[in-house]
Amino acid sequence: MAGMTALGFDIASANAAPPELGAGGKGKKVIVLGAGVAGMTSAYELSKAGYEVTVIEARAFAGGRCQTARKGFKLTELGGETQECDFDDGLYINHGPWRIPYHHRSTLHYTKLFNVPLEMFVNDNDASYVAMTKGTGPLAGKAIRKGQIAADARGSAAEILAKQVKQGALDQQMTADDREKFLAYLTHEGYLTADLAYKGTDGRGYDVNPGPGMVPGPGKESTPYPLTDVLHSNAWRTLTSVAGYEQQRTMFQPVGGMDQVAKGFERHVGQLIRYSTLVKKYRQNEKGVEVTVSGPDGKVETLSADYCICTIPLSVLRQMDMGVSPKFKAAIGAVSYALVGKIGLQMKTRFWEEKHFIYGGHVYTDNPEINTITVPSTGYQSQKGVLLGYYNFGASAAKVSALSPKARQELAAQGGQVAFPEYAQNVETSFSAAWHRIEHNLGGWAEWSEEGRRDAYPILCEPDGRLYLAGEHLSYLTGWQAGGIESAWQQIAKLHKRAQAA
Amino acid sequence: MAGMTALGFDIASANAAPPELGAGGKGKKVIVLGAGVAGMTSAYELSKAGYEVTVIEARAFAGGRCQTARKGFKLTELGGETQECDFDDGLYINHGPWRIPYHHRSTLHYTKLFNVPLEMFVNDNDASYVAMTKGTGPLAGKAIRKGQIAADARGSAAEILAKQVKQGALDQQMTADDREKFLAYLTHEGYLTADLAYKGTDGRGYDVNPGPGMVPGPGKESTPYPLTDVLHSNAWRTLTSVAGYEQQRTMFQPVGGMDQVAKGFERHVGQLIRYSTLVKKYRQNEKGVEVTVSGPDGKVETLSADYCICTIPLSVLRQMDMGVSPKFKAAIGAVSYALVGKIGLQMKTRFWEEKHFIYGGHVYTDNPEINTITVPSTGYQSQKGVLLGYYNFGASAAKVSALSPKARQELAAQGGQVAFPEYAQNVETSFSAAWHRIEHNLGGWAEWSEEGRRDAYPILCEPDGRLYLAGEHLSYLTGWQAGGIESAWQQIAKLHKRAQAA
Repeated sequence: MAGMTALGFDIASANAAPPELGAGGKGKKVIVLGAGVAGMTSAYELSKAGYEVTVIEARAFAGGRCQTARKGFKLTELGGETQECDFDDGLYINHGPWRIPYHHRSTLHYTKLFNVPLEMFVNDNDASYVAMTKGTGPLAGKAIRKGQIAADARGSAAEILAKQVKQGALDQQMTADDREKFLAYLTHEGYLTADLAYKGTDGRGYDVNPGPGMVPGPGKESTPYPLTDVLHSNAWRTLTSVAGYEQQRTMFQPVGGMDQVAKGFERHVGQLIRYSTLVKKYRQNEKGVEVTVSGPDGKVETLSADYCICTIPLSVLRQMDMGVSPKFKAAIGAVSYALVGKIGLQMKTRFWEEKHFIYGGHVYTDNPEINTITVPSTGYQSQKGVLLGYYNFGASAAKVSALSPKARQELAAQGGQVAFPEYAQNVETSFSAAWHRIEHNLGGWAEWSEEGRRDAYPILCEPDGRLYLAGEHLSYLTGWQAGGIESAWQQIAKLHKRAQAA
Repeated sequence: MAGMTALGFDIASANAAPPELGAGGKGKKVIVLGAGVAGMTSAYELSKAGYEVTVIEARAFAGGRCQTARKGFKLTELGGETQECDFDDGLYINHGPWRIPYHHRSTLHYTKLFNVPLEMFVNDNDASYVAMTKGTGPLAGKAIRKGQIAADARGSAAEILAKQVKQGALDQQMTADDREKFLAYLTHEGYLTADLAYKGTDGRGYDVNPGPGMVPGPGKESTPYPLTDVLHSNAWRTLTSVAGYEQQRTMFQPVGGMDQVAKGFERHVGQLIRYSTLVKKYRQNEKGVEVTVSGPDGKVETLSADYCICTIPLSVLRQMDMGVSPKFKAAIGAVSYALVGKIGLQMKTRFWEEKHFIYGGHVYTDNPEINTITVPSTGYQSQKGVLLGYYNFGASAAKVSALSPKARQELAAQGGQVAFPEYAQNVETSFSAAWHRIEHNLGGWAEWSEEGRRDAYPILCEPDGRLYLAGEHLSYLTGWQAGGIESAWQQIAKLHKRAQAA
């Protein structure tokens, strides 16, 4: 039980609320590198505890990857042309983080504290389409509603299993009482008839919707797809008994764009941030740290402090002049970063709502350059909308990101035709981001190998001299804002304990 | 194909948009009885087509059952004391209709037309609890997350079925290719290991959540419940392969309360409504109709028109002085109305969010007096909230509705303890409604028997003389606003066709 408590309740709550640092930071200086979510978390909590905090930020704005592209937002990828977002007023795309699972209590701690209003992000919508072109049979290449596939696959499986039970296949392994309840469960799950057959359910939709009067009156239920067609379609690849941990409902998005989280932090720590300032060199000794920076005017100066918290992505940090131990330096180089591309497409009409009745959620394709198309979880029933036209990874992201913004738009516009006939003709403009080509990030998030987690990760989780690393890369919630926040919480707690003892 | 078109596309689109009446109503008068959603739909569309429309409404406000209780809202049930809602400013309960499925295109037609902003209604939340007390075994009486039950029931079933397939049980009925794909589907659905075992999934939650650094680091996954415990718990009664047609995601609610739909209509037809006016008598002949009413001052007068559309619930209409054919009168009496009770509980804190991480959705119980508890899909992370404390039906609704408002609150407060230890101590105030005890409604919605649908319903769907009935009761979407709207659309189309021919 002592072990349980140590591993369980204590730590679980440490993920939910910042460490209580008290007020003992007075007279001590901390330099924070990076004004992303991890950096601003560190700055907020440390300055609250009395530390004198300076945040160095390469960009002219805070938030790190927590960005939202709206009219006027500019991005120049490495080796690429400059895009200036020209969406209509009020429209945006979260090209970085875009959703907050209900169990990311650390992120939700700050949205609550900073009064950032939230709305539901639709992460699972049975009415949305699965459009698999690489299957075979009559359903291949068709846009099928996910709920129809779910009803038919699970209904058919329930029928097969129920009949097995009835025929005695489980007599050896289950009691009669359990078998009876198991049959009741299967019948309920699969909407089986009294003779244990799956003949469809109203939940898979109607050919004629029920309505008023005598016609359509009760309407006409649809006919299930045969199991063999479902199996050959590949559409079942979207079905799981319950969504994976990080993908579970409920999920949120901040009203108006994910950068509202960054702006929430900025309202509290903005005065501590030196924007458009680059880190040139980091040195430390037993007495303190020195960070040489060049400001927006090119002026180089060296700042000193007692400690440093560095939230710069390892993909970038590995190229910097860091006076750290060889072991630490090697560990910094031991992780790869995700190749990730996203595109926001401004659409003239919300045809996915008006013609297809899909309000939020993902359209699944098996084209790796598109992967998923996600229609917006905001602005329902308004005139226009920005949807996520692709979310690609790895080799596909590398390939697509090598295209010009215009060619990416064309690729996304064509890719969406697999689901919606109205798609390409509705595209007005786009904004795309390939995180592996973005300066100061060079990747979407840390992707640890098993060896990296074993060898390099533990080294980076401990301070090197007076340098503490923090960020999503120093967590098991890589790619999530919660990883950055909780990593910062853990590191500042360690720093504080040491500073108090000093 | 002609049949398909007649039954399919034409009619399907007739559910999505109002009939195009043109402008031929000029010079003709219609009296509409009832300013609920069906009545106001009729008034809006008919007056747009040139008809001179008068709406008679018994209440001092429009909307019918489309009501929202907020501070100051008063309700006196038949034989009961008067409740005045004293929720804090900004809090409310939709004690009538409360959700709009994505496929209710008719309701969504008007929310769009009248610029009623919508937000997601969380109708399915895997993080929410199932709390069944009437099961047996170790899970009985415990509040279990629905997603855990889903993962374990479906994972175990997938394991059993996959092993059957592997052992050749389906060799006769499935090709080798199909069996291979079926195994792949079952493995994916159930998160089975390579040896086809279900050993849990991160989707059922962690005992220690993954986080930063080394501790908690990867966290500790939870252990599945044994299938026999799941089966005996009764919690599986909440699981279906896909939600039923009327309960499917996505669902909406109007921002600020369902009465925003009524107010949307009222902005356009309010000037046609005579409020606080009771229908005393209805008479018709071959030339027209006469409706005798008494106004707010008690003054009785007789209005005449060419036609009448009556949207008064049959539960009320059957007691009125209606000069209609005996056959029609008998049919009016042939339907029963749902006994339905709801209570809104204002809670001091949003403990379901703060302590249990449940944001929207239903808590399922097997106490029929409580049935479901629904936490709000709005105001996330704010201080207080109003949740739905019970939603009971039939005999349970009759029993609970016989209690005083205070006793209902006490019953609801105790009922919620099954799921949340913080429940009762957080209750501040309540507002309850039992629709079968509410004047001008006398029931939640029409509940047609098979015989009623066969014998009485067709009679009421046709006009009796110059009287056309409309409302949710004249549809197969009983209990939904869409039923009322689509019924009105169908009836005014018939009326218009006849008026044009006259």
